[in-house]
Amino acid sequence: MAFVVFEGLDGAGKSTLIKGVEAHLQTLGQVVHLTREPGGTPLGEEIRQQLLRVQGDTPVPRAELLLYEAARAQHVERVIRPGLAQGKWILCDRFSQSTVAFQVGGRRLNRKIIDDLNRYATDGLQPDLVVLVDLPVDESLKRMSRREQEKGQGKDRFELEERAFHEGVRASYLAQAAEEPQRWLVLDGLQNPDQLLKKLLVEMEKRGWLAFSSK
Amino acid sequence: MAFVVFEGLDGAGKSTLIKGVEAHLQTLGQVVHLTREPGGTPLGEEIRQQLLRVQGDTPVPRAELLLYEAARAQHVERVIRPGLAQGKWILCDRFSQSTVAFQVGGRRLNRKIIDDLNRYATDGLQPDLVVLVDLPVDESLKRMSRREQEKGQGKDRFELEERAFHEGVRASYLAQAAEEPQRWLVLDGLQNPDQLLKKLLVEMEKRGWLAFSSK
Repeated sequence: MAFVVFEGLDGAGKSTLIKGVEAHLQTLGQVVHLTREPGGTPLGEEIRQQLLRVQGDTPVPRAELLLYEAARAQHVERVIRPGLAQGKWILCDRFSQSTVAFQVGGRRLNRKIIDDLNRYATDGLQPDLVVLVDLPVDESLKRMSRREQEKGQGKDRFELEERAFHEGVRASYLAQAAEEPQRWLVLDGLQNPDQLLKKLLVEMEKRGWLAFSSK
Repeated sequence: MAFVVFEGLDGAGKSTLIKGVEAHLQTLGQVVHLTREPGGTPLGEEIRQQLLRVQGDTPVPRAELLLYEAARAQHVERVIRPGLAQGKWILCDRFSQSTVAFQVGGRRLNRKIIDDLNRYATDGLQPDLVVLVDLPVDESLKRMSRREQEKGQGKDRFELEERAFHEGVRASYLAQAAEEPQRWLVLDGLQNPDQLLKKLLVEMEKRGWLAFSSK
């Protein structure tokens, strides 16, 4: 088992990819836990609503950052660490890497503060692999407005941000991947879902993570 | 105007004292805003419920600390700083000093982390005066159980802590007051409400804060 995090702009195809990996691992007899941030625990899901809502008392930037980290601390201690200890695969939609991307790349907050808070909230836990499904901002915005029309959903607080915010988020993801190439796998989100899944499974195979499949 | 924080164990008499100061300031024509932590904003009051509830998904210690600080960041930016800028007196029931007392004195978390988080959440804002209504733990517990019987309320998550926890909280308050004697006023919570109010008003007079009263 391993702790795998999926990152990328909205619409990149993270959810489909996660479900594909889950299905593949299950055919191999593995126990898989899908989870997400912010969220993943009852408290975390409440915090998610506080973070994403566009009406009412929306958090100021410092409160926003601290709420993400509170939800993360709960998630790590109550779900992720216990799951790994039980031998489960943890597939997580967004994690600390999103906080760096959105708060540093997007909101231009200080990187050191974010790193310190991430380290505190996770108690030092890092993903074994971060899968970045990279997508040009134009394509992300196009896909999100299509999704909105189809589902009739409004935008959340982050989707309402300016284009420069999303460009900053994307650039931060790519910079983080370049900083730790061993931990990150960058996939091209313009590929179709089958291609994305195949590339990820090849990477997992290469890391020896699917070795039990030959048993 | 000034930013005055009231600290002490539950049952010490903070609420009565705050209302007494408010009434006195109002007779002098001052604009006073009473507030509290955790809370003080709509988001902060939601977080208060998450922190104090005894059922459901209660926060792990790291999440608890981060939630306090998130509520504080919102409170400082949306209520306390704007209020002071408008010339209001801010009388606040608990602030950063409670976090040090409960998390370091009570839960034995690392002081440096708490100080860093407090500095971040408050953006460096400190109270002009911290009024500690000091009370022996036995007396606090006695008063709280009486209040519980009268009101038929259950205990919150902090009231359920062990005696050693509360002793640690009290000791931390006294240690903080000793570290910064200029910022803290220690009152004896065994005195009656009138005596407490009188001592505080004498202190405020001494600081020149009630000088407008003679105009």
